[in-house]
Amino acid sequence: MLKIIVGVMGPGAKASPLNLQNAYELGKLIAQQGWVLLTGGRDIGVMDAANKGAKAAAGLTLGILPTDYPGGVSEAVDIAILTDMGNARNNINVLTSHVIVACGIGAGTASEIALALKANKKVILLNENQESQIFFKNLSKESVFIVNTPEEAINIAQGILTPGK
Amino acid sequence: MLKIIVGVMGPGAKASPLNLQNAYELGKLIAQQGWVLLTGGRDIGVMDAANKGAKAAAGLTLGILPTDYPGGVSEAVDIAILTDMGNARNNINVLTSHVIVACGIGAGTASEIALALKANKKVILLNENQESQIFFKNLSKESVFIVNTPEEAINIAQGILTPGK
Amino acid sequence: MLKIIVGVMGPGAKASPLNLQNAYELGKLIAQQGWVLLTGGRDIGVMDAANKGAKAAAGLTLGILPTDYPGGVSEAVDIAILTDMGNARNNINVLTSHVIVACGIGAGTASEIALALKANKKVILLNENQESQIFFKNLSKESVFIVNTPEEAINIAQGILTPGK
Amino acid sequence: MLKIIVGVMGPGAKASPLNLQNAYELGKLIAQQGWVLLTGGRDIGVMDAANKGAKAAAGLTLGILPTDYPGGVSEAVDIAILTDMGNARNNINVLTSHVIVACGIGAGTASEIALALKANKKVILLNENQESQIFFKNLSKESVFIVNTPEEAINIAQGILTPGK
Repeated sequence: MLKIIVGVMGPGAKASPLNLQNAYELGKLIAQQGWVLLTGGRDIGVMDAANKGAKAAAGLTLGILPTDYPGGVSEAVDIAILTDMGNARNNINVLTSHVIVACGIGAGTASEIALALKANKKVILLNENQESQIFFKNLSKESVFIVNTPEEAINIAQGILTPGK
Repeated sequence: MLKIIVGVMGPGAKASPLNLQNAYELGKLIAQQGWVLLTGGRDIGVMDAANKGAKAAAGLTLGILPTDYPGGVSEAVDIAILTDMGNARNNINVLTSHVIVACGIGAGTASEIALALKANKKVILLNENQESQIFFKNLSKESVFIVNTPEEAINIAQGILTPGK
Repeated sequence: MLKIIVGVMGPGAKASPLNLQNAYELGKLIAQQGWVLLTGGRDIGVMDAANKGAKAAAGLTLGILPTDYPGGVSEAVDIAILTDMGNARNNINVLTSHVIVACGIGAGTASEIALALKANKKVILLNENQESQIFFKNLSKESVFIVNTPEEAINIAQGILTPGK
Repeated sequence: MLKIIVGVMGPGAKASPLNLQNAYELGKLIAQQGWVLLTGGRDIGVMDAANKGAKAAAGLTLGILPTDYPGGVSEAVDIAILTDMGNARNNINVLTSHVIVACGIGAGTASEIALALKANKKVILLNENQESQIFFKNLSKESVFIVNTPEEAINIAQGILTPGK
């Protein structure tokens, strides 16, 4: 039976300390729900922190890599999907995730939020960047959720994943 | 020798009348420069209007389609690239274009702007959506240009394509 | 730490009874080794049979789907990767697999064998189709292994995965 | 109106002198028909030779590159499509081509023939490799055509493209 997959997207090298802390916490909470964590898989920034959080809670971690080899993969990734598609793999990230949490912002993360909205996916924004909140909320009022903490993000995700609850 | 390719991205069904008028004019001006026009290739919205403008000026038009068949292609497309990749083809659109003009905004267009910035491409925004202007300018000050008319967009594109000029 | 992933490729609707029996057995043996099973993920043919074999031995199963929705996925798939890339996803199948077993033959399977060889991956052929054995062995003598049973395939895979053994 | 696109696929570095001679001639004949030539776009082997043949007859040439930059592109390519998808771009090559001519054989070319047959495309084989002829003819009797010269390949392509003729 299909496992529930929650994607955490966010900056690599340019992630802020708060982004990293939030990503670690998100990974841990996702694992504690019994969900699989999906990230872009690399050993930097939000991707790496989220994977480490998930492993700290004994979760299962899925990394969708842009390359055709596993170099540069986070050591906390269990399953590496090698796409060799560069940033086009961002579309696989969002299609495969049942819910997407964007933790921080950057050009790559913005592309994932936009691709998710194009595919009618729900996206939870956890960042301090007001311009991104205004822009994406304006693009798709019903599909974008703005939160301030990892716990809030998980609450929203639970509501999306089990609508009857 | 490689031809210069300029991409025009924008909404499909949700394009505004001004988006369509600008797209037609952009297509025409691009063709008059001797550049190849690249779009997402479909027979609606900004894609269709830009292709029609380019053909009105006897230009060459390239459509990068999301499907594996040419149904739904603009009748003004000369060369249809069938990717069968859905919205992941947006990455091919921006990598292949030497300069990108975003005419209007929507989730798909936002993904193209973001993927372009991720790939260090220059993007010219021609729209009335201030939130998008603020957000993307904030993401990448040097790579985003904001214009008010198709003519201005072409002037900026000329400067980008022939830096010495 | 990265889990070992072994791909089983083979026909869908046109799989023979022997292909299906071999695929089920391969799935079971792969799971018993502690390896993750990768397939094209659909609910027919070799893909479905291999996944069912792996779940019978409590393995973890990964399905790389051609679509953007999980319809048509084998009920024995745990993790569905939604690529929306049609047959271009065959390249992801082979890049992600540490070893590939081709169980039966068809156009899709032939594309996976060829893409695997292009990427310098080892491929184990388990089929009764002599033309395919001759053709692919001829293409790449050192990378193609011909076997007659699932047990033989697993022995070869072990040798490839742990060269010092 | 959509232009007719004919793909010529074949080995890069390992192309034989006869492959190269045939590819040049194919490119020339394709251009003389008024068709667009599609290749993998690189500056080696069959790709480069076919493009040079097409330009010798003033044709239009389309190169579908595996990379995200135009380095390594044949100087005889007019329009470079930058996919950044590695060998997954082989699927775009065959979907975009109305007819495919495989000139010579290798792992990459074999993947293109197989992907073309999977997509129900017609493939014309021009090579001296009997194993490939037997294998692919066996895979799909009605879709595979075996020829000995570029002229024969063009005759078959004409029959496929204008069935009423």
